[in-house]
Amino acid sequence: MNKCTVAELLSSNNFLQEVTIKGWVRTFRANRFIALNDGSTINNIQCVVDFENTSEATLKRITTGAAISIKGTLTESQGKGQSVEIQVNEIEILGDSNPEEYPIQPKKHSFEFLRENAHLRIRTNTFSAVMRVRSALSFAIHKYFVENGFYHFHAPIITGSDAEGAGEMFQVSTLNPNKLPKNETGTVDHSKDFFGKQTNLTVSGQLEAETYAMALGKVYTFGPTFRAENSNTTRHLAEFWMIEPEVAFNNLDDNMDLAEDFIKSVISDILKNCKDDLAFLNDRLLQEEKSKPQNERSELSLLEKLNFVVENNFKRVSYTEAIDILRNCKPNKNKKFQYLINEWGADLQSEHERYLVEKHFKCPVILFDYPANIKAFYMRLNEDGKTVRAMDVLFPGIGEIVGGSQREERLQVLQQKMKALNIDEHELWWYLDTRKFGTAVHSGFGLGFERLVQYATGMGNIRDVIPYPRTPQNAEF
Amino acid sequence: MNKCTVAELLSSNNFLQEVTIKGWVRTFRANRFIALNDGSTINNIQCVVDFENTSEATLKRITTGAAISIKGTLTESQGKGQSVEIQVNEIEILGDSNPEEYPIQPKKHSFEFLRENAHLRIRTNTFSAVMRVRSALSFAIHKYFVENGFYHFHAPIITGSDAEGAGEMFQVSTLNPNKLPKNETGTVDHSKDFFGKQTNLTVSGQLEAETYAMALGKVYTFGPTFRAENSNTTRHLAEFWMIEPEVAFNNLDDNMDLAEDFIKSVISDILKNCKDDLAFLNDRLLQEEKSKPQNERSELSLLEKLNFVVENNFKRVSYTEAIDILRNCKPNKNKKFQYLINEWGADLQSEHERYLVEKHFKCPVILFDYPANIKAFYMRLNEDGKTVRAMDVLFPGIGEIVGGSQREERLQVLQQKMKALNIDEHELWWYLDTRKFGTAVHSGFGLGFERLVQYATGMGNIRDVIPYPRTPQNAEF
Repeated sequence: MNKCTVAELLSSNNFLQEVTIKGWVRTFRANRFIALNDGSTINNIQCVVDFENTSEATLKRITTGAAISIKGTLTESQGKGQSVEIQVNEIEILGDSNPEEYPIQPKKHSFEFLRENAHLRIRTNTFSAVMRVRSALSFAIHKYFVENGFYHFHAPIITGSDAEGAGEMFQVSTLNPNKLPKNETGTVDHSKDFFGKQTNLTVSGQLEAETYAMALGKVYTFGPTFRAENSNTTRHLAEFWMIEPEVAFNNLDDNMDLAEDFIKSVISDILKNCKDDLAFLNDRLLQEEKSKPQNERSELSLLEKLNFVVENNFKRVSYTEAIDILRNCKPNKNKKFQYLINEWGADLQSEHERYLVEKHFKCPVILFDYPANIKAFYMRLNEDGKTVRAMDVLFPGIGEIVGGSQREERLQVLQQKMKALNIDEHELWWYLDTRKFGTAVHSGFGLGFERLVQYATGMGNIRDVIPYPRTPQNAEF
Repeated sequence: MNKCTVAELLSSNNFLQEVTIKGWVRTFRANRFIALNDGSTINNIQCVVDFENTSEATLKRITTGAAISIKGTLTESQGKGQSVEIQVNEIEILGDSNPEEYPIQPKKHSFEFLRENAHLRIRTNTFSAVMRVRSALSFAIHKYFVENGFYHFHAPIITGSDAEGAGEMFQVSTLNPNKLPKNETGTVDHSKDFFGKQTNLTVSGQLEAETYAMALGKVYTFGPTFRAENSNTTRHLAEFWMIEPEVAFNNLDDNMDLAEDFIKSVISDILKNCKDDLAFLNDRLLQEEKSKPQNERSELSLLEKLNFVVENNFKRVSYTEAIDILRNCKPNKNKKFQYLINEWGADLQSEHERYLVEKHFKCPVILFDYPANIKAFYMRLNEDGKTVRAMDVLFPGIGEIVGGSQREERLQVLQQKMKALNIDEHELWWYLDTRKFGTAVHSGFGLGFERLVQYATGMGNIRDVIPYPRTPQNAEF
């Protein structure tokens, strides 16, 4: 076991102590200076090898990617860029890394190349920083909810219902596809399957979470969800993690308050706890942007964007107001939008959301009270009879990051809506029971975790913020 | 939004303040005393209705399960069993609960009946206590790892590999089972499927976690895993949550230290944070045991069992020692075991594990150094050439709760083992890369979350510690 970590040593001033440290060589220069990393921080510790008293054979094996164990003395560093270093007394090569074969050399690799080597990309500065921030965000999320009286609800992953309609589903089965049992009509006999019926991977744990909120008060899910959609974009994954809080007695205003407070809180958390990684990612993005034409660069750096979210109120705008703004804006009048906004009721596209957030308001925006017919069946109908108590939180650069609503708590209204949309009441008998017995106002939302990680790390492609992305034609590793 | 919770009011001594509280009626007796619960605690708050000034129509609607909103004055309670109560000034019925139809009445329901009403069982004392403890354990786990320098690694759920061999797998597909594309030989053409090949639900995130440990040092997974096994027992689920830490530079001793410290820490955490729920579950179990014959009752109560784990060292015993004990023990000599232990190499069954833990050592036991041929391919071969650095943690009542090992870090030894077991090297090319480039000693283990929740709550059936259990023939809700 590593009795101490690079992170601990770098912040130590216990000089002249003897230390043992294990890690991987990032670089070895002048036959003398090893930059050693063990994953505990983005920073390396410099280990100074006494090359005159080290065998040539050993020196040759100190290559990028090799695992080594160092015994030495912690000293104040003479060099620039670090405060401590280790004067090496003993070095052991634990695992070699043949420089002729090792794909991750100390040079710039394309993200595309690194995606093909997703098992090794975590050994680079960028990906280790992204994944440490991802981990910190994940914990910040749990901490926020627990400290605010929420219970973690583990939603089922395999589901027998496909009523939620959030998207295309993956089927789950144990039937041998080459020997499918058939029933009399010649179609597949799903009663012979593992669960005795057709099952799918969940697209959302919301409906189940509602049943728990109606007893525990405040619950949240944080688990994988799935979309079998052929979307090859920088914002879509077939498998992604979602956070879904659900709160009894919350109306839509409370729901917006929760979403805003939640996002601010977790971002504020990583600004405090991930300083080194965020500083690195901030610089990385600045470098990347230099290769873009001036007018395509962001006005704010990564750190400025994160601080901006924490420090400013999200602008709350009704769908109706938004349509007014969009109808009269320049890109609509000049027909620059791909989908022109002509009338109330139009479904907003990514280009419209981005205009509102990035050009018009220049801050995160919460749109609310959408037309009923472009939103899901379970959303609370307003007294106007044509809008529902839905809300979307829109972020600069990534668009919709949160989608939520106050839920329709009135049994009859819900039943009418389901009937109109041909949703089978029998399949959702248990969901309707929550409206039959002790129903109450309640609200919740879903937040795509990877989109939040994208925003927090400044990574452009969602495939680069999850360890092993699943996308159409790709389930490697 | 509920501006205060029952838990807060019960611990308040801010008497005579005006409060508003929303929740669900647990009982209503003497037309006067409402026991109100909002999920924030197992305890109800007593609300005293001024029935002379409340309409008969309203009083009739105060039934078990109804959602209500109360305005009133917080006062010191005159009655037994509570310190505060609310003198009701105003009562609003938010959602009725027809006592003729509501399945959850204030009486004892069988667990079997409650499983059929899993969407409502969370409204009972037992299940709300279990699920609050489950949530607290989940957070304690994240906290333990984060405080000890681990990063949360989100393992992929859909996987293209089936090499790990931990169990039967569920297939994932978007192909229409009634119109399967065929290739020339008449078998299913998986290249037409969503991912361009056959994919399954993961049985373990370990192999992927290893790739991350070899860069970040210490990582853990906490996610759903799946077994398509037709096991209808009180200890098996088709979908369950697993925790898998993986640590670079840890050997098997470090791994055992980690497992023991981890389990003690999280149990100690809930003993501190879930006092009321655990006290309730402790009493529940005592009541349940009263219906058993004396000799079948546990010697320790639930709280005693939890404290015992925290306060005592786990006994570490090699497989070889365990075989000696079992070969010479009474049930083996008297042929009471279903599977008699005759010689070294035998695979231990549940009856043997239980004997060691419950009769012989009477404490949690860690067995280690198992015969190579009854364990997985990735476990580190000992110098004796016949045992591997595997370990299992065995708990009273539930048997194996943790299974882990030091991993085989030597490329050639691993390749030989895979060849002998017909595991395709090409499929695990990325796993082998971790041994090619900077390999090092490392170890990890898997812990079935639901088994831990069973132990922590004293629940006999694993279906009662997860919100919506998935088992053969059952994927309801």
